[in-house]
Formats: sequence, structure tokens, C-alpha cells
Amino acid sequence: MGNPTAAMLVIGDEILSGRTRDANMYLLAGELTKHGVDLAEVRIVSDDRAAIIAAVQALSAGFDHVFTSGGIGPTHDDITADCIAQAFGAHIDVRDDARALLAEHYAKTGKELNEARLRMARIPDGALLIDNPVSIAPGFTMENVHVMAGVPLVFQAMVASVLPTITGGQPMLSQTLRVLQGEGDIAPTLGALAEAYDDLSIGCYPFQQDGAFGANIVIRGTEGKRIDAAMTQLARELDQ
Amino acid sequence: MGNPTAAMLVIGDEILSGRTRDANMYLLAGELTKHGVDLAEVRIVSDDRAAIIAAVQALSAGFDHVFTSGGIGPTHDDITADCIAQAFGAHIDVRDDARALLAEHYAKTGKELNEARLRMARIPDGALLIDNPVSIAPGFTMENVHVMAGVPLVFQAMVASVLPTITGGQPMLSQTLRVLQGEGDIAPTLGALAEAYDDLSIGCYPFQQDGAFGANIVIRGTEGKRIDAAMTQLARELDQ
Repeated sequence: MGNPTAAMLVIGDEILSGRTRDANMYLLAGELTKHGVDLAEVRIVSDDRAAIIAAVQALSAGFDHVFTSGGIGPTHDDITADCIAQAFGAHIDVRDDARALLAEHYAKTGKELNEARLRMARIPDGALLIDNPVSIAPGFTMENVHVMAGVPLVFQAMVASVLPTITGGQPMLSQTLRVLQGEGDIAPTLGALAEAYDDLSIGCYPFQQDGAFGANIVIRGTEGKRIDAAMTQLARELDQ
Repeated sequence: MGNPTAAMLVIGDEILSGRTRDANMYLLAGELTKHGVDLAEVRIVSDDRAAIIAAVQALSAGFDHVFTSGGIGPTHDDITADCIAQAFGAHIDVRDDARALLAEHYAKTGKELNEARLRMARIPDGALLIDNPVSIAPGFTMENVHVMAGVPLVFQAMVASVLPTITGGQPMLSQTLRVLQGEGDIAPTLGALAEAYDDLSIGCYPFQQDGAFGANIVIRGTEGKRIDAAMTQLARELDQ
């Protein structure tokens, strides 16, 4: 049995326009690897209803878990919750449990729970709330889709809330060998090693630095001893 | 007539595992915005034949242009060129024009043009080569798919080679207003503005800093005067 699979859906014009550099994908990828969940695909779509719904349906059907980031705030461009409801044919409205969380929070801080903020209590029927210790407005899990905020600090807190509820597999381990040899010179060795250790994933990531060619060779797998064996053989064959 | 649309396909286990933080997407998004091409979707898939082929076919059919990043080097895990050929039902082998480029380059540098390096001359029939001034091994354009390297320095050079061959539209312009007000307070104003200026895209990107809530409001469009007008009205209504 392999590890459970996951996909991520990032919703946000600000990344597609080049205004913002994504941080959430990098964070989630690392957390899932530690948790033994294989992140197999990421999609980034704009704040567009049809694009969000189509992506949610495709990814929810194709993977064990889907994590979304962005579009659950109080402004007019926050349409994710309604799109998720539509993707699953679920009813959505302001829900009492989410409203109660917001009402308590805004009462404490002296801010008005206006119509815009109430949008953040729109949760599809049947969804479970995801705790948000940073700014209270919750995310939610609808079937296998975990819907989270785009603000990195809040996203990170929601990931920490939701990951313990997910059964992970074996954490993926990795070792890296950095060599100052051209990728073309080491390719035959790597190809043979990948065939001999077909239970491991062997990747080669070239770089150029101060005019010299080099590569980081990364060996990944779930069994530390197998990675040790492959890495020892590799280092010997490359005279490292 | 709107601007041409584009999608990006990033091929690479190293990003999905959280080992590497993507740089190419951020670069391409900015370059396309300047060139008047709307980046509408990004997908990141692993080094997996079926996943690459399915994504190439879907994105090629859905958008005017597709830009890929990664998987065209000399090692066993570089399978992008063969997948592109298969996606379009094209024949692929070492091509004379690409081999000649590599032969000249390696003759100069005194390195052997071995079987591994020759993999980088595998180009589908009918594809146009994309110039790579950094490390010579070319990318290629197959129908509406532009296939480029994953190493950021090389990717950037290939983007510079290929963008002038693409007819762009009107560059997307943007202005940003940073306010120290909570998103929930400014949401009603933004919603009304978005309705009044429905030719513009108005996004709100909240942040928290030193305990204070704020937001960057970004207004995007192709006509500078319309953006000016909307921004002036917005600043007045938010007492900025």
C-alpha cells in the first residue's frame, strides 16, 4: 500500500499576475512530505467560478485529499466557499456555528460583525469547520477537500489544525549528494542506479555556479537503509 | 478582443516534495503580464509520463499558449520531450539541427557528447528550436507548447528567446493602495467599486503586521486612465 495522495489548489489572481510569490505551496509540500502524504499535483487558477469548480471536481475525484488556499475572506473576490458548495451540489448559507465564532471574536475586539464579515461564516451543509487560531474565521473540510485561507500565517495555522485529522503513511525520507560534475557526465551512473533501486526515486537537479557545472542528486524513499545503500554506491561510483 | 491566454506546466518532483521553492512561475507570470498575455492557470505535476501527457493535452486545448518548465536534461528522469511528442502523436528522435548545436558546443569545451548528452537533442518532428544562450541545449516549440528547461537561469534565457515570437496584447497595468484597515471594514466599498468599474479587476490582499490588520488593494486593467479614476475614487472613499 502506497501513501495517501494529495493535490493542492491555489486560488488567486495575485499569483498568476506575478504580483505575489506563492508561499503556501512550499509550506504545504514540506508538511505533507513529513506526514507521509504524497503531494502529486498543484493547480493555480484565477478568481473565476468555472475554473475553480472544474479544478475542485477533477482533483477531488483524482486524489485522496485536496487542499485549497485562498478566497475565503470577506471581500467580493472571495468566492471559494460558494464554488466548493456548487462543486459538490451542497447548500450554502451563513451557518450558526461559524457565526457564533465570529460574533464572539468581534464582540471582544469591538469591531462590527457587518454583512461583509458575515460572508466568512458561509459554510456548506455537511462541512466540518477547520480551526483558525490566528484570525478566528474558520476554514472547512467538505468531503475530501480542505478549504483554507490564503494569508500565509493563517494558512499555516489551518494546516496545523487539519493535518492531525488525516491518516498519513510513511514519511518520505531523502538524502542529497552535491557533486561538481556536469549532469551529462553523471547521467549514465544515475540511470543504472535508478534501475537497480527501482523502489527509490532518484532525481538530478543541475546548477551552474561561478561558471562551474554541478548537480544535486536527491534519493528519496521510505526506507532509510535502502537510501543509505544507494547513496553509498553512488558516492563510490562518482569518486566522492 | 481580450489578450491571448496562457497556461504554465511545471514538471518536477523537487517542487512537489517541498525540496525546492519554484522560481520560474514567478518569473514567467511577471514577463507575461508585461507582454500582454494573461496567465490563467498553472499546473505542477511529478515526473510521471501519464500525468505530463494528460496535462499537456488539456492545457494545449484550453489556452492559446502553454509554457513548460523542467525535464529536458540528460538524465533518466528527463522525460518531458518524449511526453510532448506522445501528447501530439509526433515522432521523436535525436534531430540533426539540435545535435549540431551540441556537437559544436562540446567540441569547444572539450567534453564528450556522450549518449546521455545526446538525449538533449531529442526533439519532436515539426517542432521549432528555442535558443538557449546559457548552456546551448535547446528548448522547442511544438504547436502552441513552448518547452523549456527547469534551471532558472536557463528558463529565463529561453523565455527571453520565445516571447518576441508571440503576439501579445495590451500589457496589464496595476496600481496598489495599502491601507491599515481591516478587510471586513473596507469590503462594502470594494464591492461597490468592483460593480461600478466592471472592466477592471479589483483584488484585496489582507495582511497582519505587528498585530495590526491591513490590506493591499490592487486595481488591474489595460487602460491607465480608468485605473486612475477608480483609484482616486477608492482613496477618497477610504479617507486615504
